[in-house]
Formats: sequence, structure tokens, C-alpha cells
Amino acid sequence: MAINFSHDTLGQRLLFGSGKAAQHLAMEVSRLGAQRVMLIAAPYESQIAQAVTQQISVHISYQDVVQHVPIEKAEDARRVAIEHEIDLLVCVGGGSTTGLAKAVAMTTGIPIIAVATTYAGSEATNVWGLTEAARKTTGVDNKVLPVTVVYDAELTYSLPVELSVASGLNAMAHCIDSLWAPRADPINQALAAEGIHALASGLPRIAENPIDEQGREEALYGAYLSAVSFASAGSGMHHKICHVLGGTYNLPHAQTHATVLPYVLAFNAPFAPRADARIAAAFETSTGLEGLNRLREKLNAPQALKDYGFNEADIEEAVSIALPIIPESNPRPVTAENLAELLHAAWAGTKPTSN
Amino acid sequence: MAINFSHDTLGQRLLFGSGKAAQHLAMEVSRLGAQRVMLIAAPYESQIAQAVTQQISVHISYQDVVQHVPIEKAEDARRVAIEHEIDLLVCVGGGSTTGLAKAVAMTTGIPIIAVATTYAGSEATNVWGLTEAARKTTGVDNKVLPVTVVYDAELTYSLPVELSVASGLNAMAHCIDSLWAPRADPINQALAAEGIHALASGLPRIAENPIDEQGREEALYGAYLSAVSFASAGSGMHHKICHVLGGTYNLPHAQTHATVLPYVLAFNAPFAPRADARIAAAFETSTGLEGLNRLREKLNAPQALKDYGFNEADIEEAVSIALPIIPESNPRPVTAENLAELLHAAWAGTKPTSN
Repeated sequence: MAINFSHDTLGQRLLFGSGKAAQHLAMEVSRLGAQRVMLIAAPYESQIAQAVTQQISVHISYQDVVQHVPIEKAEDARRVAIEHEIDLLVCVGGGSTTGLAKAVAMTTGIPIIAVATTYAGSEATNVWGLTEAARKTTGVDNKVLPVTVVYDAELTYSLPVELSVASGLNAMAHCIDSLWAPRADPINQALAAEGIHALASGLPRIAENPIDEQGREEALYGAYLSAVSFASAGSGMHHKICHVLGGTYNLPHAQTHATVLPYVLAFNAPFAPRADARIAAAFETSTGLEGLNRLREKLNAPQALKDYGFNEADIEEAVSIALPIIPESNPRPVTAENLAELLHAAWAGTKPTSN
Repeated sequence: MAINFSHDTLGQRLLFGSGKAAQHLAMEVSRLGAQRVMLIAAPYESQIAQAVTQQISVHISYQDVVQHVPIEKAEDARRVAIEHEIDLLVCVGGGSTTGLAKAVAMTTGIPIIAVATTYAGSEATNVWGLTEAARKTTGVDNKVLPVTVVYDAELTYSLPVELSVASGLNAMAHCIDSLWAPRADPINQALAAEGIHALASGLPRIAENPIDEQGREEALYGAYLSAVSFASAGSGMHHKICHVLGGTYNLPHAQTHATVLPYVLAFNAPFAPRADARIAAAFETSTGLEGLNRLREKLNAPQALKDYGFNEADIEEAVSIALPIIPESNPRPVTAENLAELLHAAWAGTKPTSN
């Protein structure tokens, strides 16, 4: 198969080390020569934020973080940053917090150092999102890419196990779906496979012990790679299906992803032997599906969409909405029939197999 | 083992496609809005350069490319770029050509698009080199990193097989040595492993048929990854040894690398099981050494340093020069004794084994 791709590698510094966030952040603030730091962290993250920023001088602390970055909130934060002549944004938190920092960077050009406390992955991408009149707009702009990301697994110890596993499986879905997404290329595929390996090792450790250092490090590292590979490769079949299930039938995000993923893998694997070989190697199993199924068993992952409010009667409509948005690049040709079969199996929780 | 690293990902666009260099270059020149292009290509590369630049307008063409970038040559090229108000450097060629473009970018800040025609890999790094009074200085500066690299395997068809294999094995040495180099981290290790896989597949194809498209693509892609991982991880034990053998005893570069590599791998592998697992997986063999040995057989690679002018009597001295510069991070503790054993085996061409 010809090697044929265009790939944008995003320039960014990562500082990864358990218990080192405060020290790494101080190093970077000093390296960048920042004088007037605006700290962005939600009230519920303020304890972590305070600990992490103890070695730097914070000019102003901003806490008005709201999910999905409403435009009014973004504009207020931008105004504050300009009025205070801020020269560096430091955000400490998950996707919403990073999202607000990105909204400020987008119009002001002020650089960001992101300290990640969840597996959201936003800190590793140049994607921004804003919500105006209940409508979410997203876009891509290198100005919003944090110049440095500080990863410290200890900051994730307080993430509840259930949320960690759900969010980790979501990251796993990003990795696996990246392998056949529209802009999949060997570079983002290699990074996705590395992410699969890290998540497959880390998540069961966390499920057993939420403060297992190795587990937390691997999950955080895997979540980083899932964001990098997904942002680079784009949305594949899996994400398009889940987007419809979540958007039209209001199914819960994490459970939907966790349930649908093995069916999409089983569906595509025979048509994407090289991608499947990468997944299998990452799981250290003979097929990708075997690895994913084993991991799902260990994590006691959700099994059937019917358990989460999806009705058998909605399958036909879901197929008609999802079919047109599934990328043409999908390795296996998708038809109304085979998509209905896939959704029916996912609805019922039939054991996912490649037939 | 704790995940603990700092990693600088260098932002760069890659456009990879056989037969597409001219089109990709034109796309990028237009995207960057460049008006006054300075083309840098050596006289012996002028035919390729002409073909590749046929869809763009070249303001001035500069051909005075000399190996190792003598400072006088760099200064002349800089003067020409400034006098002609150049806003984009396009270099078409191997390491010396890219090196001259980097020397210009370094002081002028003019961006570079690099069209690579060899496996040198300089186009994928932020490393510059200049020679003044017979002394080479190197350094790191993000200004010299090409904003875009155009890879077109067809441009490498005319690289002679022997040179391709030697240069490909040199890239292989970069990948393998990256796995235990001082700044090795999981990200550059994953990229190095991807590079090993690509080179292991591509080089034997080229040895059989120098215009095998898949082989040329894989080798070029692998060479790119070897440069990225080596620049990120730094020089490991292998490169320190070869540096001494080349510098002090004037042994030929490519043959020295090709000969020494399996001995260093055999030496380190038992002490670096995770690195060896990555190498083995990349070769699709049960150990890294098995994979490397098989590849070397297929390529009829050089076997013994004694065939290239190294004397048994020089081993002791070589050990005393190399020992202090081998990184402390090397997985296996290096002593004068075990290093002498390694060099003796490489001198004699004894089958490399991990004992």
C-alpha cells in the first residue's frame, strides 16, 4: 500500500512526572519569562490549583469556568486578561478549564501552560470550542495550543474510579477509531497504538486501586496520545455513530462509547488488517478484538445499549442519520443493512465478533 | 517503572506522496503566501530541483552547496537572501543542502520548505551545523526547523543501492540507539520503533530493486522517523562508540555503524527488556537481535571492523576514549572490560550474541 499522507505535527513541550507539577510549572513560567500570570481553575479545582502554583507568582486568579465555554464567559475572561496585561495563561483542570484558556488565547494570542487533571486531552490539541445561543462551534487554531503541558499523575488520584474508567475507555475509543479515521496516517497510527498499549495496561490497575501510581501514569499518558492521534486523524465510524446516539437519543456519552467500540472494531478489523495488527500488538493479543474484549471484562464495561435507554425501534432511524456521515474512508463499506446489524448487536449486547 | 520525561515535539507539516513533490511544493508555497523564493540545490541536484519547482516561481536559484556548511558559504548565502528580500527558502537535496538553508534561516528567520532527496533526515530536526576553521559547531534552534517537508520517494530512485542501504542502516542505528539514549522517552521510543519497522521492510526491497516504490517509501518514511527520534532522544552508546572509531581511527562512517550496531544491541538488550520488546515487535521477531541479524543477512551488511582498517592493537585506546563519553543512562553498566570485549567481537566479526 502506498504511503501517502499529509501530517501536521503540533509543536508542544510536555513535562511528565508524578509529584512534579509545581516544580515543572515554575520551571516553565521562568523559561517563558512571564511576569503577569492569569490562573484559570474552577472553584472545585482550586485546591489542586493552589498546590500546583505555589512556586509561581499569580497575578490574577480566575474561577468562572463553565462547561462548553459559553461565549459570554469567554468574553469576560478575555476582558480580564487584557485589562490586567496578562502575559501567560496557566490553566489547571479538565476540558472546560482548558477550553476557557483556549478561548482567551484565541483572540489575545497569550500563550498557555496547561496542567491537566483529567483524561480529557484538550490540552494536547489546537481545537477550540465555544457555545453561543445553545449552539456549539468548534475550530482549529494553533494559537490555542498550549505551549507546554504539565502532566502529574498524582493530580488525577482524586478522579473517581468509575469516571476514570469511563473516561479512559473514551480515550481508548479515540485511539482505536483514529486507525481508520479520514486523516489516519502511519504517524498518528503509531501514536494511537502506543496510547492503546498504555491505556490497556493502566486502566485495570486504576480499577483495582485508584491511587496506583503506574496505572495513573499510564492512563494519563494514554489519554494524551489519544488526544494527539484523534486530533490528527479526525472522527472515524465509531465517533459518528456515537455522535448520533448521544445527540438524537440522548444516550449517556461514556457508556455509549464503551458499548459501541467493540462492535465497530469487530466490523472493521477484517477489512483493515494492518490497523488490526497494530491494535493486537498494542494489546499483546492475537487480534485487536480479543484484546479489547479482555480489557472490557477486566473493567466490567457496559455491554448493551438497551441498558442505557436505547430502543430497538429506533435502530432504523439511527441508521438513516448515521449512514450519511460515516467517512467514505472507512475500511469496510457501510450499508444500511450492515449498520443496522451492528446497532442491533450493540443494542442487545450480543458478543461482538468479526463474521 | 515510573513515566518521567520532558519531551519537545517539533511542529512541522509533512507532505508525503510518490510523484507529488512538485504539486505539494506548489501547494505549500501558495499556502505560505511566499513571493520571493530562493531555491537552494547543489549543481548535481539541479535536475531534480528543476522538476520539483516547475509549478512555482523561483526568484533566485543558489547552487554553492558544500559539505558541512563552511561559515563563508553560509555567509554568502545569507547575504544573497537578504539582498534579494527572500521570503521563503526552498531546499531540494540531502543533508548539505538542507544544512545551508538552515544556516540562512538561523540568522535571517526566513522559513524553509525542505524537499528531501536522501535519508539524511536533517529536514526533520532543529539542529544546525557550521564549519569554521575546520571545526564543526552544531546547535539547536527552532528557527532552522523547516516549516514543511516534502517527501517524494521517486526523488530517491537514483540513490545508488549501496548508498541507500548504508544510509538506511545508519537510520536504523539512529532508531535503535534512540531507545536507550539519554533523553529516551516513550514518545520518541514509539516513533523509533515505527521507524525500525519501516526500514526493516523497505531496505531489503530496495536492495532487490532500487526503484521499488514501496521499498523507497518505507525507507524514506523510516529515515524521517529515525531523525525525529534521534534528535529527540540524543546520542546513545552506539553513536558514542562510532564517533570515536570514525574520529580517531578514520573508519568509514556507514560501515562502522552497520558493523557495530548488532554488538551494542546484543550488549544492552538483556538490560533493557522493554526497549528490546519494542525492537522485536518492530522487526516481528522474538528478539531485537534476531530481527537485526536477519535484516543484516538480507542486506549483506558489513561484518567486522578489521575489514575496514581497524586494528586489534587499537582496541585498548579506543576503549579509553569511548568509555568516558558513553551516557550514564545506558541500561547496562559499561566497564573498560566489557567495552573491550564488545569492540574485540566487532573487530573480529564474531557472531553478536547476548551472553
